[in-house]
Amino acid sequence: MSHDDAITHPARRKLGRPRSAASRRAVLDAAYAILVEEGLPRFSVEAVAARSGVARTTIYRSWPTKGLLAFESFRDVFEAQLTFDRTSSPEQDFHALVRSLARALGGPSGCLARSVIAEAQNDPTVLTQFLEHFSDPLRRRSTTMIQAGVDSGRFRHNLDVPRLLDAVVGAVYLRLLLSLPLDEIWANSLAFTLLQGSLSAPDIP
Amino acid sequence: MSHDDAITHPARRKLGRPRSAASRRAVLDAAYAILVEEGLPRFSVEAVAARSGVARTTIYRSWPTKGLLAFESFRDVFEAQLTFDRTSSPEQDFHALVRSLARALGGPSGCLARSVIAEAQNDPTVLTQFLEHFSDPLRRRSTTMIQAGVDSGRFRHNLDVPRLLDAVVGAVYLRLLLSLPLDEIWANSLAFTLLQGSLSAPDIP
Repeated sequence: MSHDDAITHPARRKLGRPRSAASRRAVLDAAYAILVEEGLPRFSVEAVAARSGVARTTIYRSWPTKGLLAFESFRDVFEAQLTFDRTSSPEQDFHALVRSLARALGGPSGCLARSVIAEAQNDPTVLTQFLEHFSDPLRRRSTTMIQAGVDSGRFRHNLDVPRLLDAVVGAVYLRLLLSLPLDEIWANSLAFTLLQGSLSAPDIP
Repeated sequence: MSHDDAITHPARRKLGRPRSAASRRAVLDAAYAILVEEGLPRFSVEAVAARSGVARTTIYRSWPTKGLLAFESFRDVFEAQLTFDRTSSPEQDFHALVRSLARALGGPSGCLARSVIAEAQNDPTVLTQFLEHFSDPLRRRSTTMIQAGVDSGRFRHNLDVPRLLDAVVGAVYLRLLLSLPLDEIWANSLAFTLLQGSLSAPDIP
């Protein structure tokens, strides 16, 4: 990594917030576009710098590795796709969560996720980055939302939130990996099945 | 495909059942061993013939394509690992199903499944064969078992068995693909969560 840029243009370190936020946006947008067009193996900070017009050294200051930049740009787009209006009903929010996940992975982000997961099977570094910079942060968000349903008393007090999320996320990803349709009817029936459980006479502790 | 063997040894077409069953076993065992050692891309009927001592033409008579042979040998081993004693309790059987799936995919079969799923993301033929000759037959078996719990009245009459299986199988495969442990405690808590559902006051139709 060269520091030419920081030496030649020291004033860049003093950029104000609006300019900095615009650079950040430009870098993330360029990174995501390159990721979708070229795939993770051909992704490079050099290409992001060229496309965004932001200096490579400036990029490295915020994203010390190219993996971090790649996964943050992916998560940034993916999180926007997962956004939905919260309601006062934990059940409706859960249905909306499953639908938004299915919809997001049913689109272009799903193609990217498939190739990343395939690559992660041969490259442990990719797997670690996928978990740390993509999957885990998204999971924490969903956990907070479901936990609010437990706290409100609508979901059972001893609900195993991590296992419920294993089921939701696993079902959606498996369907993606098997090229099966991720439509809204499927998402709603999955959400309904997980909320209701299977027993005809549940033992509620 | 050459028919030399069938011409030179026409008597082989008249082999009795015991010999035929032994050949079948030898072919499937050799196929699975080659699959684990070499992976799907390097798998060949020639290698199975050499290892099993069964003529290539005889193999082709039962398995017209190498994909069919590869996936049947994998399914054969996998099904044996999924075997457990059924009880009179649909809940206990469901727990045993989830545990056996986690145990099977937590072992050497899991490594093979990971590489096959990774390859299926770049090769639609592999995906089709995986679904037709591996995943779908196993799913039919599990469906029958869970449906028995519905018929007995222990599981709710309107249980969406396909969605429940999406959740079970998806959760186990995702954990495999993310290199997270597939231990018995995890499997039991997943089974419990899916059976109980999430609502503290379920609406039972």
